[in-house]
Amino acid sequence: MRKKGLLIVVSGPSGAGKGTVCREWLSRNPETELSISVTTRSPRPTEVEGKNYFFRSRQEFENMIERNEFLEYAKVYDNYYGTPRRYVQQKLMEGRDVILEIDIQGALKVKERFDEGVFIFIVPPTMEELRKRIVKRGTENPEVIIKRFNCAFEEINFIKRYNYVVVNDKVEEAVRKMEAIVLAEKCRVDRNSELIMKLQGGI
Amino acid sequence: MRKKGLLIVVSGPSGAGKGTVCREWLSRNPETELSISVTTRSPRPTEVEGKNYFFRSRQEFENMIERNEFLEYAKVYDNYYGTPRRYVQQKLMEGRDVILEIDIQGALKVKERFDEGVFIFIVPPTMEELRKRIVKRGTENPEVIIKRFNCAFEEINFIKRYNYVVVNDKVEEAVRKMEAIVLAEKCRVDRNSELIMKLQGGI
Repeated sequence: MRKKGLLIVVSGPSGAGKGTVCREWLSRNPETELSISVTTRSPRPTEVEGKNYFFRSRQEFENMIERNEFLEYAKVYDNYYGTPRRYVQQKLMEGRDVILEIDIQGALKVKERFDEGVFIFIVPPTMEELRKRIVKRGTENPEVIIKRFNCAFEEINFIKRYNYVVVNDKVEEAVRKMEAIVLAEKCRVDRNSELIMKLQGGI
Repeated sequence: MRKKGLLIVVSGPSGAGKGTVCREWLSRNPETELSISVTTRSPRPTEVEGKNYFFRSRQEFENMIERNEFLEYAKVYDNYYGTPRRYVQQKLMEGRDVILEIDIQGALKVKERFDEGVFIFIVPPTMEELRKRIVKRGTENPEVIIKRFNCAFEEINFIKRYNYVVVNDKVEEAVRKMEAIVLAEKCRVDRNSELIMKLQGGI
């Protein structure tokens, strides 16, 4: 039997750089699957079904909710977005690791339903640096920036519900730590019952 | 304040190769301190106080036991051997990692007194390989070999009390996994309260 993959949940406040570390992860670890969301919004011209998103009608999405087919979902303005449980499970069963980049609210919902995932909280080196990144990113007006920063500030408090914290100062360094985390998690005793039974059986 | 080091407890059945992986670890990570035991046995000609062992009289050792100065100790035939708590704590406070190679009984005692250590169980790739290694090592007679193998076999059951299991097939590979484990443990949320408080404080 092939060993199950790991669900790597990469989360953190806006501006911490979770998108950047995930892209770097995938370029260094192309065998990892990126979790693909289901959405009810219309595809943009360059977007491909099953690559960028799974595009579904509102009715189909609501049916999936009823059948408990999401690890988490949320409604943003008029559209639904969700992480399909079956897609993730299937990749994990094939022995592939799956990386899921997600905001903090979403990550906490995933944790309730899939506690065996590895929950990594990406933080900026300092809150001042986070403020700078939010400012730099943005076409946003000062009000939005302040709101976003305050929100990030609040969100730091959820870190206690995560397993690991990784400071994203240099992206390569952050990804190197994530790689160590994933390798280490695969060595955890509670993830190796098959190996242990084999040894206990004298094989 | 410098970040505290980690106590890395490397244990496993006889023949699994914990000595080999520890030597390889130290050659790759020379900044790690090797935990030095206290013993009542006489120094051999080449042994140096404070490098191979701390040599103490029986009276001194028993005083240390009374003062609760050991993370663990054991009597082997007529001599005591023990892991001095203060020496380990001091290195950890200096921010140095300390590696402790120890048998399973000893490791379990350390775990009772120092649960924040990282407990790694080294296993052979198969029990058959373990048997071969015990045979190969040995000037021992067949009876001793069988006894040792049976003992190793029993000891595998204690693995559940450890955090990690590392298969020692290729030594370099095993050490690479241990390095990942140590780096990952340093990213654990519960080992980073200072960083988190700093971020929560807006710094």
